[in-house]
Amino acid sequence: MSQITRSLSNLIKQLTKLPGIGPKSAERLAYHLLRVNKTEALALASSIADVRENVAYCPDCFNLSEGGLCAICSNPNRDRSVLCVVEQPRDLVALEDSGVYRGLYHILLGRIAPLENIGAEQLTIERLVERVEEGDFKEMILATNPTVEGDGTALYISNLLAEHSLAITRLARGVTTGSILEYTNKEVLADALTDRRPF
Amino acid sequence: MSQITRSLSNLIKQLTKLPGIGPKSAERLAYHLLRVNKTEALALASSIADVRENVAYCPDCFNLSEGGLCAICSNPNRDRSVLCVVEQPRDLVALEDSGVYRGLYHILLGRIAPLENIGAEQLTIERLVERVEEGDFKEMILATNPTVEGDGTALYISNLLAEHSLAITRLARGVTTGSILEYTNKEVLADALTDRRPF
Repeated sequence: MSQITRSLSNLIKQLTKLPGIGPKSAERLAYHLLRVNKTEALALASSIADVRENVAYCPDCFNLSEGGLCAICSNPNRDRSVLCVVEQPRDLVALEDSGVYRGLYHILLGRIAPLENIGAEQLTIERLVERVEEGDFKEMILATNPTVEGDGTALYISNLLAEHSLAITRLARGVTTGSILEYTNKEVLADALTDRRPF
Repeated sequence: MSQITRSLSNLIKQLTKLPGIGPKSAERLAYHLLRVNKTEALALASSIADVRENVAYCPDCFNLSEGGLCAICSNPNRDRSVLCVVEQPRDLVALEDSGVYRGLYHILLGRIAPLENIGAEQLTIERLVERVEEGDFKEMILATNPTVEGDGTALYISNLLAEHSLAITRLARGVTTGSILEYTNKEVLADALTDRRPF
């Protein structure tokens, strides 16, 4: 690597820090950025700066927003009696894409992960409790990831808010549409049997 | 995707233009750039701008350089009687890493690819001919990729410079060190037999 210029090796170093980008991919990306026309390369650079300059968290739900309340919190047509708790902004995007949910959200910005030293106090749980106390929610849907850590976080929150008069629900678990029972995990089948419902 | 902010969706759009980065990876990278500390994100942005600002092609060999001749052309210790012709700057880096070659290079910045409408005139072949005429080279090694297009480009160049009094060679082709004959392509074995040399 001694034959490449200083700014090129710096760019490769910066690209290698991105998730899923190894040294070889970083090299390929860097050479690509050198080859495309300058406007395109600079457009990427400025969009990175732009996103860091303009995007902030919504003070209510911690969704991404460009100044003030996010598009969902400020939308008068959303159902303000249901609150859906997710780990990350991209979980919100995924749920919105399903087109089924019309309530509000709360983004935890992570999950409780003792192995990574992430405790409840590093998440936005304090603000969640405030919102539940201030608001008039009838139901809270815990939509953390169906993983050990996500489930643990959901359990923690449901314990914390157990005394409030709102229904606490979670996402249904079962077989996925389009899957084949023969090849489905036994854990998934166990969930599907446990959560079975009238036809 | 309607739930994400304008600058975030712009960043995702820019990232999707990179080679090997699909919409999902672009989303993941964009959220990563939002999550890391601001200095790190801006360091990436400025290193992209920096590389486009400072890196140019060496006027002699078309290697990447920061102003004037590249590190190899300006190195007085390189052997100025041998010229190695490669397709891309990263081929030069790969050959340099092998540590065997001490001569100069010429980078074509591509290969002749009729299917992509890339002809000889879009490459740096004109300057290559000039260099061979001006310089005092005894040997030219054609080190284009061992592909149909790379071989075609090498053939074109060797025809073009056939009348000059310099030896034109190409990289050896054969079995790769560490490989197993049983699993080696018949084309590779044919090359290895044809290019066999005294033990």
